[in-house]
Amino acid sequence: MTATAAQPLVLPGDDGTHATMRLLVACPDKPGIVAAVSRFLFDAGANILRSDQYSSDPTGGAFFLRMEFTLRHDQRADFAERFGHAVAERFDIAWRLWDADRPKRIAVLVSRYDHCLLDLLYRWKRGDLGGEIALVASNHADLRTPVEAAGVPYHHVPVARDDKPAAEARLLELLGAADLDMVVLARYMQILSGTFLERLGVPVINIHHSFLPAFAGAGPYERAKARGVKLIGATAHYVTEELDEGPIIEQDVIRVTHRDSAAELTRLGADIERVVFSRAVQWHCEDRVLVHGSTTVVF
Amino acid sequence: MTATAAQPLVLPGDDGTHATMRLLVACPDKPGIVAAVSRFLFDAGANILRSDQYSSDPTGGAFFLRMEFTLRHDQRADFAERFGHAVAERFDIAWRLWDADRPKRIAVLVSRYDHCLLDLLYRWKRGDLGGEIALVASNHADLRTPVEAAGVPYHHVPVARDDKPAAEARLLELLGAADLDMVVLARYMQILSGTFLERLGVPVINIHHSFLPAFAGAGPYERAKARGVKLIGATAHYVTEELDEGPIIEQDVIRVTHRDSAAELTRLGADIERVVFSRAVQWHCEDRVLVHGSTTVVF
Amino acid sequence: MTATAAQPLVLPGDDGTHATMRLLVACPDKPGIVAAVSRFLFDAGANILRSDQYSSDPTGGAFFLRMEFTLRHDQRADFAERFGHAVAERFDIAWRLWDADRPKRIAVLVSRYDHCLLDLLYRWKRGDLGGEIALVASNHADLRTPVEAAGVPYHHVPVARDDKPAAEARLLELLGAADLDMVVLARYMQILSGTFLERLGVPVINIHHSFLPAFAGAGPYERAKARGVKLIGATAHYVTEELDEGPIIEQDVIRVTHRDSAAELTRLGADIERVVFSRAVQWHCEDRVLVHGSTTVVF
Amino acid sequence: MTATAAQPLVLPGDDGTHATMRLLVACPDKPGIVAAVSRFLFDAGANILRSDQYSSDPTGGAFFLRMEFTLRHDQRADFAERFGHAVAERFDIAWRLWDADRPKRIAVLVSRYDHCLLDLLYRWKRGDLGGEIALVASNHADLRTPVEAAGVPYHHVPVARDDKPAAEARLLELLGAADLDMVVLARYMQILSGTFLERLGVPVINIHHSFLPAFAGAGPYERAKARGVKLIGATAHYVTEELDEGPIIEQDVIRVTHRDSAAELTRLGADIERVVFSRAVQWHCEDRVLVHGSTTVVF
Repeated sequence: MTATAAQPLVLPGDDGTHATMRLLVACPDKPGIVAAVSRFLFDAGANILRSDQYSSDPTGGAFFLRMEFTLRHDQRADFAERFGHAVAERFDIAWRLWDADRPKRIAVLVSRYDHCLLDLLYRWKRGDLGGEIALVASNHADLRTPVEAAGVPYHHVPVARDDKPAAEARLLELLGAADLDMVVLARYMQILSGTFLERLGVPVINIHHSFLPAFAGAGPYERAKARGVKLIGATAHYVTEELDEGPIIEQDVIRVTHRDSAAELTRLGADIERVVFSRAVQWHCEDRVLVHGSTTVVF
Repeated sequence: MTATAAQPLVLPGDDGTHATMRLLVACPDKPGIVAAVSRFLFDAGANILRSDQYSSDPTGGAFFLRMEFTLRHDQRADFAERFGHAVAERFDIAWRLWDADRPKRIAVLVSRYDHCLLDLLYRWKRGDLGGEIALVASNHADLRTPVEAAGVPYHHVPVARDDKPAAEARLLELLGAADLDMVVLARYMQILSGTFLERLGVPVINIHHSFLPAFAGAGPYERAKARGVKLIGATAHYVTEELDEGPIIEQDVIRVTHRDSAAELTRLGADIERVVFSRAVQWHCEDRVLVHGSTTVVF
Repeated sequence: MTATAAQPLVLPGDDGTHATMRLLVACPDKPGIVAAVSRFLFDAGANILRSDQYSSDPTGGAFFLRMEFTLRHDQRADFAERFGHAVAERFDIAWRLWDADRPKRIAVLVSRYDHCLLDLLYRWKRGDLGGEIALVASNHADLRTPVEAAGVPYHHVPVARDDKPAAEARLLELLGAADLDMVVLARYMQILSGTFLERLGVPVINIHHSFLPAFAGAGPYERAKARGVKLIGATAHYVTEELDEGPIIEQDVIRVTHRDSAAELTRLGADIERVVFSRAVQWHCEDRVLVHGSTTVVF
Repeated sequence: MTATAAQPLVLPGDDGTHATMRLLVACPDKPGIVAAVSRFLFDAGANILRSDQYSSDPTGGAFFLRMEFTLRHDQRADFAERFGHAVAERFDIAWRLWDADRPKRIAVLVSRYDHCLLDLLYRWKRGDLGGEIALVASNHADLRTPVEAAGVPYHHVPVARDDKPAAEARLLELLGAADLDMVVLARYMQILSGTFLERLGVPVINIHHSFLPAFAGAGPYERAKARGVKLIGATAHYVTEELDEGPIIEQDVIRVTHRDSAAELTRLGADIERVVFSRAVQWHCEDRVLVHGSTTVVF
């Protein structure tokens, strides 16, 4: 085994009697929500590890809350049901409860660029990702070796130019059988149809190799070179039917100069892409990202 | 009047019937604090605008909470007293309550460099600072003109090399008479004694022209040039008796190269100093900084 | 006078016998240019202080060179003429020679936001700009006071919605009489016509409050908020007839979160705008920016 | 093979008739150097691809020049000898000539952290490094698998606490037999003696996990947490006998908050370490770094 930089935190209840849970809440803002949720958690014997909240508009917009807490196992059985009755219904809350010990199951779609995929595999192996890579599928055969070396199944699903629906059907079959929590596009150079996304039924995260909304679509580094920008960037976002228009999770940039050719922008940009992509996937795995219309709240 | 970029938010209660308050809480971490505080605020009819919290150690460290909320004026009278009895005593809470409508009164100490002072005056005039500049004192006469042009009293308090106590006594007299909430050192090139700080009795923020703890003390740009660093920085921190050792509020850096002389580092660094300094002062004015041992929690 | 951070360099020839010159060269790339230019300078007794060059394409593109050097006054008289004959004609060089002791004369156009204007005035007064503010013109009367306090003439040139040509004619008259080297738009909220730019005959630099090409046009902060970007930026560029499409000189960004309203983006962005703008103007004043098609080379 | 982002540039002479060369020059600054060097290259039929120069002090300091150019193979034979006679001796030039087609041979020393090592291997495999990994040696056995999977010999050289000289002797034997151009310490947690460095006879680059000179020595992330800094960094530098005091090649930082534990700083910092380290090694491989006293010039 390779050495890892991070040590797991020892949390209260790691004696096996407690679980660490994450509660995500979204609802119309009104007084009393925090009091009700925190009272409920206190009565259930929960110990709050971290809490974040956001009101989109103090005069009455949307309210978002994320609470991470430990809970005795004997309190877990009907915790969700009780929370639904006691709190969620009263405040018209959309909510989600996640057991932090259960990693998100992730499928990776990739084409031929390997930097985002390899970085994700690396962080998973280090124990930093908060998820597990269940499978990799690609429209090319190129990346089979490193994926299988990591112990992950690699599926080659070619995409015929004149029969994309067949490829999507094959992918849906594959992904549907894998009990996934999310799908991530690690530079997957194919556009997914709205039908596909709908049938998939789990969140999809894409990395785009520009600072969106600049240079949406194809060839962003070539267009960045032609426009003469002084910074290039990368954007991780949830995928929606509209290309490169989904809610942005994370972005970052790197400084470039007139000396850098489009090929060098591609090389430099790869360092930003992989970091932005991995951050976004990790944050999603840790339930730190909530969608708010066409934007995100990141706690 | 000059144009300003920002428009004031219209908050609930800006009809004059409500006040915006900020509550800061620090105490030993234990279950039930958030439930108790949020219940108390709910019962008092408060509307929470923003809430942030931090547990230094989930297994039992320090707990910090900042809540910003609106309150009806008729609830304000005995709000503090009731909070003390109902919540603070029960959880052994150190707390502070601040009326957001009341700007912090600030004295600025400065020597001859003007960039931090002028930036602060500018933000104050724009309405972005959250505080008001009550007076400026300096060991030099140089900066009288721009300060008085801003309508602020300028006091020249020379510091004789062989009689610093006399200068500190004169400063204490001046500052003590000004009903201050804080003192800020906008490149004040004099070391303040522990006795002075103790008698002053309000927080003091300093800007140091390096990325602390690198280059603490005199001549940081010259030493940065000699060491050949590739980034230079600035650090805003609370002043303690030990020079450049107080809790850090904010830091930032800027990239430099071998081409930049110490004089150019000084020029480039000034842009970072003024921004880091103004941010730190603004955050303090907004009650977003809590001291935690030798460090800070910034909400 | 206020204290300044920077000390002037003492250069060879500052005894008054030498001048510091800058030579800018652009031509088709071919072997021997550097040898010819550097030989010419050596023979003229010049001492090269700094030299930068760039080949857009090693297989035969454009070549750019900037040389800064000292020259004895008795060599200056026919230096340009001799360079033209001996070197420039031979290599088909477009070139420019500038005496570094002569500051660029700048006119500032501004509307109501003051942050870019004030920062420029400040740097000029510090001696950091490499140019001098000859006049300020505005379509509003708001900023007269600080401009006149800096000793600069302020011209109020209202722009009637239905008679923009009249305003442009008045501006041309004003600017034409001022012996200018450049015009800068410090948040001037008016579009200048192609005819105006052509008649003006000097370079124009604009600051746009977004990371171009994202959010070109009106309301970039509102659109940034709606799109949910995680970084906002500013772009300084040469003005061409096509809005926000001119060659980019400098860009920078700052991190924002879901918590920041459009008003807060405006406030935070102002700090980036003024720095990006001042850098671009300073670099132009120092003859460090060459236009290369729709992009720039910045030495 | 994995896909790679970058395409090789097609340079003049890539028909096999030309070589790409890099000439590094350091000497006391005086007039005529550039004219002499560029004239020599022109006469030799060289085509300059890129040229950078730096004068440490225009009034008479050190002068540094890097020129990258193509040369016909039939000109290469005695090029160095001719340059020595015609130019170098005349200007008292210390110089180095490097054939860009010849990758630097690199040995990596590593302990148990794998992130810097793996990133270097990855860039080498992509063809981005400008060097080749000749061998890896470690005081631990942990990282054998990924190194050997990359086709690189892995040598386990344990370091006994009471017999470091034996380990250094074994390392010197290993490294001495490998015809190396440089040695890099990819988080090698052992201090190398001055004797070892001297006998090694090639440059050594280290990555230190702090923003030097802050937190030199052991435990920088723990000390960064204790001091409460708001940014953490990494520094790549040439190794000298004095620990963490060698000339800095590259540094970068990342923002952190009070929420980040020392373990999280370690995790976040790893992303900066690997990028800073790989950049520094690549720049050295490309002959872009010159040592200037206790600092570097990076072209």
